[in-house]
Amino acid sequence: MNILLLPELDNEQTSFSITDLSQIKHVQQVLELKAGDGLKVGSLNGELGTAVIEAVSDTQLKLGSLNLNTMPPSKLDLTVVLALPRPKVLRRLIMDMTAIGVAEIILVNSYRTDKSYWQSPILSRIDEFVTEGLQQGVDTIAPNIQLKKRFKPFVEDELSLWAKDRSLVVAHPYSPLSFNAYIEQAGLPQVLCIGAEGGWIDYEVGLLQDNGCQPVNIGSRILRTEAAVNALCGRYL
Amino acid sequence: MNILLLPELDNEQTSFSITDLSQIKHVQQVLELKAGDGLKVGSLNGELGTAVIEAVSDTQLKLGSLNLNTMPPSKLDLTVVLALPRPKVLRRLIMDMTAIGVAEIILVNSYRTDKSYWQSPILSRIDEFVTEGLQQGVDTIAPNIQLKKRFKPFVEDELSLWAKDRSLVVAHPYSPLSFNAYIEQAGLPQVLCIGAEGGWIDYEVGLLQDNGCQPVNIGSRILRTEAAVNALCGRYL
Repeated sequence: MNILLLPELDNEQTSFSITDLSQIKHVQQVLELKAGDGLKVGSLNGELGTAVIEAVSDTQLKLGSLNLNTMPPSKLDLTVVLALPRPKVLRRLIMDMTAIGVAEIILVNSYRTDKSYWQSPILSRIDEFVTEGLQQGVDTIAPNIQLKKRFKPFVEDELSLWAKDRSLVVAHPYSPLSFNAYIEQAGLPQVLCIGAEGGWIDYEVGLLQDNGCQPVNIGSRILRTEAAVNALCGRYL
Repeated sequence: MNILLLPELDNEQTSFSITDLSQIKHVQQVLELKAGDGLKVGSLNGELGTAVIEAVSDTQLKLGSLNLNTMPPSKLDLTVVLALPRPKVLRRLIMDMTAIGVAEIILVNSYRTDKSYWQSPILSRIDEFVTEGLQQGVDTIAPNIQLKKRFKPFVEDELSLWAKDRSLVVAHPYSPLSFNAYIEQAGLPQVLCIGAEGGWIDYEVGLLQDNGCQPVNIGSRILRTEAAVNALCGRYL
């Protein structure tokens, strides 16, 4: 946690009390801060700044001298369309994509997405992972996150329309065109479609391609979903 | 696991028995393969190829029709000097750097490396994480990994000599030069020095800089160590 994220506040507010137990625990046990210490904060959808701890107990953290004065960093011009991965890796993926500044995240069904993943209680905790990512990445603006449980209608009815004014690629190890060669010709694409463990099946790559996505490879090495997402998004930094 | 890594074999060998329980379990439970099924294999320090499962039990996996015929992918022209991180994240870091093809990994002490990390039993398991990384990344050549428990002598006596014929950068959020601007001018650096949680302290950045490392930033966002390593290494794909 590199900032403590507060709810939406107006810039004139100078004090605030936190009751989120995980935030209080982090401040006490990981950052080892106590009354009188300063820390970096941000207001959700607002500015970044500083505050001073006035008092801290196991259930409440009182902040004073709140000074919100810095705009959060810009988002990347990037939408990631990600095949819904195993619940276990979803937390870190949402956190990392949020921290690195992805503007929009679409979690989509795929052939290799087990049906049970859509029933996972982890999906109701996405906002929590976004907060973790904003606190890691020193940002206050949540990415726009959407869930699309039906792949074909999403690609044919929604993604196909984006192709009119945005550049789209799908990561696919068997594409003859490399991501580097694509970027040299066309610049960084605005939409990246990334499969989860096992990647996209040929039908899915074909449908994405028919609707405006250029398949690109990142070499013959196969990366964990998390590693691949960070390696691809790293190009935008 | 995208290949099953076998020990060093010569290319004429056509059968092999595996007794590594974690590999057997993975083949049975995750890949769900049985006698008669084919799978991708590689021979440590040798070639990639295919084999057929002749028999499988909980303690032995007999492979036949072994055909090693493909060279592993080239390594990246990249040494990563990484501040030794928490044991918990070391496994994934070694695995990811191996999978993405880093040629050399130097784990070095830093001010923010807790002394206890050097006593962790996880350090004796690095070979295991390398095997996982090779099996993930479809490679057979282990990276060269070294541990350097003393930062200053390592930087002054070893790293300083590299600067004669290699390009070195240190990732540091407060550097005015961006990684992108560095790459545009000088190409991809051959050595990346990356801090662990909390980053390098000023003294460390100063010492690295005095010994030939150019500090570069990747923006104001702060990434988890794993995310930063993958985001930086992704530039080399």
